[in-house]
Amino acid sequence: MKFHAENIDLATRSPTVIINGADAEELGVNPLDRVQIHWNGETHIGIVEVTEEIVAEGTLGVTHRLGHIDGEIELTHAPKPGSVHYIKKKLNGVELEADELRTIVRDIDQDRLSDIELSAYVTGTHSEGLSFEETKFLTEAMTEVGDVIEWNDGVIADKHSIGGVAGNRVTPIVVPIVAAAGITIPKTSSRAITSPAGTADTMEVFCDVAFGIDEIKSIVGETNGCLAWGGALNISPVDDKIIRAENPLSLDPPGQVIASVLSKKQSAGSTHVVIDVPYGEGAKVESLASARELATDFKQVGAHLGMEIECTITRGEQPIGRGIGPILEARDVLEVLQGGGPESLRLKSLRLADILLESCDVEASARDILDSGRALERFREIVAAQNGDPDVTVEDLVPGQETLTVRADRAGVVTHLDNRLISDIARRAGAPTDRGAGIELHVSTGEPVATDDRLFTVRAEQGPKLEDAETLVDKSEPIRVRDRGEALVERL
Amino acid sequence: MKFHAENIDLATRSPTVIINGADAEELGVNPLDRVQIHWNGETHIGIVEVTEEIVAEGTLGVTHRLGHIDGEIELTHAPKPGSVHYIKKKLNGVELEADELRTIVRDIDQDRLSDIELSAYVTGTHSEGLSFEETKFLTEAMTEVGDVIEWNDGVIADKHSIGGVAGNRVTPIVVPIVAAAGITIPKTSSRAITSPAGTADTMEVFCDVAFGIDEIKSIVGETNGCLAWGGALNISPVDDKIIRAENPLSLDPPGQVIASVLSKKQSAGSTHVVIDVPYGEGAKVESLASARELATDFKQVGAHLGMEIECTITRGEQPIGRGIGPILEARDVLEVLQGGGPESLRLKSLRLADILLESCDVEASARDILDSGRALERFREIVAAQNGDPDVTVEDLVPGQETLTVRADRAGVVTHLDNRLISDIARRAGAPTDRGAGIELHVSTGEPVATDDRLFTVRAEQGPKLEDAETLVDKSEPIRVRDRGEALVERL
Repeated sequence: MKFHAENIDLATRSPTVIINGADAEELGVNPLDRVQIHWNGETHIGIVEVTEEIVAEGTLGVTHRLGHIDGEIELTHAPKPGSVHYIKKKLNGVELEADELRTIVRDIDQDRLSDIELSAYVTGTHSEGLSFEETKFLTEAMTEVGDVIEWNDGVIADKHSIGGVAGNRVTPIVVPIVAAAGITIPKTSSRAITSPAGTADTMEVFCDVAFGIDEIKSIVGETNGCLAWGGALNISPVDDKIIRAENPLSLDPPGQVIASVLSKKQSAGSTHVVIDVPYGEGAKVESLASARELATDFKQVGAHLGMEIECTITRGEQPIGRGIGPILEARDVLEVLQGGGPESLRLKSLRLADILLESCDVEASARDILDSGRALERFREIVAAQNGDPDVTVEDLVPGQETLTVRADRAGVVTHLDNRLISDIARRAGAPTDRGAGIELHVSTGEPVATDDRLFTVRAEQGPKLEDAETLVDKSEPIRVRDRGEALVERL
Repeated sequence: MKFHAENIDLATRSPTVIINGADAEELGVNPLDRVQIHWNGETHIGIVEVTEEIVAEGTLGVTHRLGHIDGEIELTHAPKPGSVHYIKKKLNGVELEADELRTIVRDIDQDRLSDIELSAYVTGTHSEGLSFEETKFLTEAMTEVGDVIEWNDGVIADKHSIGGVAGNRVTPIVVPIVAAAGITIPKTSSRAITSPAGTADTMEVFCDVAFGIDEIKSIVGETNGCLAWGGALNISPVDDKIIRAENPLSLDPPGQVIASVLSKKQSAGSTHVVIDVPYGEGAKVESLASARELATDFKQVGAHLGMEIECTITRGEQPIGRGIGPILEARDVLEVLQGGGPESLRLKSLRLADILLESCDVEASARDILDSGRALERFREIVAAQNGDPDVTVEDLVPGQETLTVRADRAGVVTHLDNRLISDIARRAGAPTDRGAGIELHVSTGEPVATDDRLFTVRAEQGPKLEDAETLVDKSEPIRVRDRGEALVERL
């Protein structure tokens, strides 16, 4: 059927074309069907949306994703892409082959799937699970569609945390320790998506984080390490597109988590990786059994891909460190590097660094490297190489000055810190965009408190955002205090 | 955060608002998050899409679905709606309560879910299944959001086919038989979505089909029956929205099928229903065991809702009747009513009518009613009541004159007719929009053929559509002929 094509100013994720309801009926296409657009000797595939308003009969609205197409075109039915058949196959409980997963990953990479189809894929991997073989193939397919960094060194160290724990800013402590021990550790991290800060957000308090592959190589050449933002690189780019479909329902299928993490590590050229799997109420992984299973799968898929994976299973039911939000976490990091700081952050960082050093066959003690000041020195060198001020002090890192302090309304013991609520409040207060916004914790689980003792302080840079956070604080209980009897036997 | 709202000319299904990437970052929202729009003392909920192009920083693009909103507005985060939590719960394998299903159905009805969320619901019910209780609650919830037809008679007969079988136009034969036996049968049917013709498309060859509830009551008052299009009524309207999300992956979760069919029957006031469940290769239900299970569930859910359900399990691996497409099927229907026509269509219609009459406690033989001409007479009365020509003859029903006849390339026996391919070819040829387009079958499974015997004829109203159909015919084998040896033992 012939149409007059017009570009319309609409940025859609998939290659949408818009046709009038009467034309859709005439052509026999339904919303979300695919059509072939024949134009100028080229054939393009579009996904149909039907409207009665935006385009008149005989006109085809072409969105940005399809590039420039206008004038006379011919529209015909297009077959469903292979990946739609494979998603259906997965939904029917049949294991997918390497080629089939590769087709799905390529179609996601090229934005060829509608949201309905993409969500069916994500939901399907959640419900049906991914086998060991499938996870392996998926990891390889995700690596293939992006860039790969190559290194000359034999050993490239890396670390990763599964996330879901507020604070937990161990990376900027582990990296300089490992780098100071002579190991190459080109760490790339993410920015926050649903959390109050990612490692990249926290590092941006100190220095630049957006670098290309060549710049990263030069920083690592100088210092053995880097603390960069992975989003500036085209490493396993399909991951972000899958995350977009996972977020609305907070889905995180284990096989997909493994493929996402290991495809990034493989693309980054990592050979020895420590992966932290925090578990507990409110963390991404809720039970010890699931954490163990995930850790085992990580090791096995990693081994297949030629990576040495060490997994740590850690308690994740409360935040690590004192500060939540970019500047507050940056202060914690600098204090730990200077020999002080919150004990939970110091101890967890040392433990992860030791495991990574041991995995790389280096005889060195993380504690020695930290306590001798060599980690701090290396951190300052990395900051300098990333265009930051190497002489930065804790006093330079000024958190938001709009504050709200919440106090205990009774004497007792702290029984629970709620990761998700604490993160939500920090985000309402402005984190991560307002770098000084977030939460300072004054207590941790198990600690005794008296009436009116401070529990936490919300910090914001802008008054209205503090008020927004306050509304959530008022109607929730991010830190629970119970008297000693209640703490032992809580009534439902 | 304050914005200047502007309506933008974009018809989306869900209540989309469009904000600039920089604003999304500042506000801390991701694509598909929900926001509250505070305007003029009202609060509206929008689903965020992020763009760098369509709207400038500080501007909120408001789509049609949200109605008229402009000028200064305040944007704040909105909590996820209840249904998103319930969809997640379902995905985690937990059975849903009546209230939770009701919330999901209402949110779908009001277009409050994004495509990602809607697809997760459909995929989740496919993967996790729906229990008997859930199916019951879902049926009730789907009935509740639409209109209901009330009748004075005690017995209201109805029929339904699960579909997937090409041709199979039994309804316009069963309805006049049952109506002639004195039973009220106000039948509403659908138009084709992915098939070459729905019963409503075929009936439209004879008469009008789009009527309101009052008009239907008046037609039924005159003739005991009607053959109308259900889409003109607001009966279980959420069904169409769910079908939109099922189509891209051809998902048809059994519990959802039951809820969709029975909510429509309940809304239509039906008391006695015969449901045909065709099974076999290429039909919607592929195995006899699945067909039996579905039939049992239909009966039980129906009984709970106070309906008498009879189910027939029929062979569905090949088309029923000779013609596929509105006019070709209309010819078959009229021929059967006149005492001739294809035997498969005649016998199946008689069997279904007998079962329905028996279920309604009427002692009458469908064959007698048909052979006496009373069914034809009643059919003509219904056509007249629906503004059609009661004196229509088979010769008046002229199929498409652009034809392509496919012949056997060897002698042997017909081993297979492929429902899906036959439907796809008929649609390519122009059905259902071009009413005369479709396929005429000249053989059925098991029939011996000689070389060059006609297998089927494709009919189109427009040359280019015939060519479009021919491309598919050339690369597929909609009717398989094998020699007798091969037919018995086929090699893979």
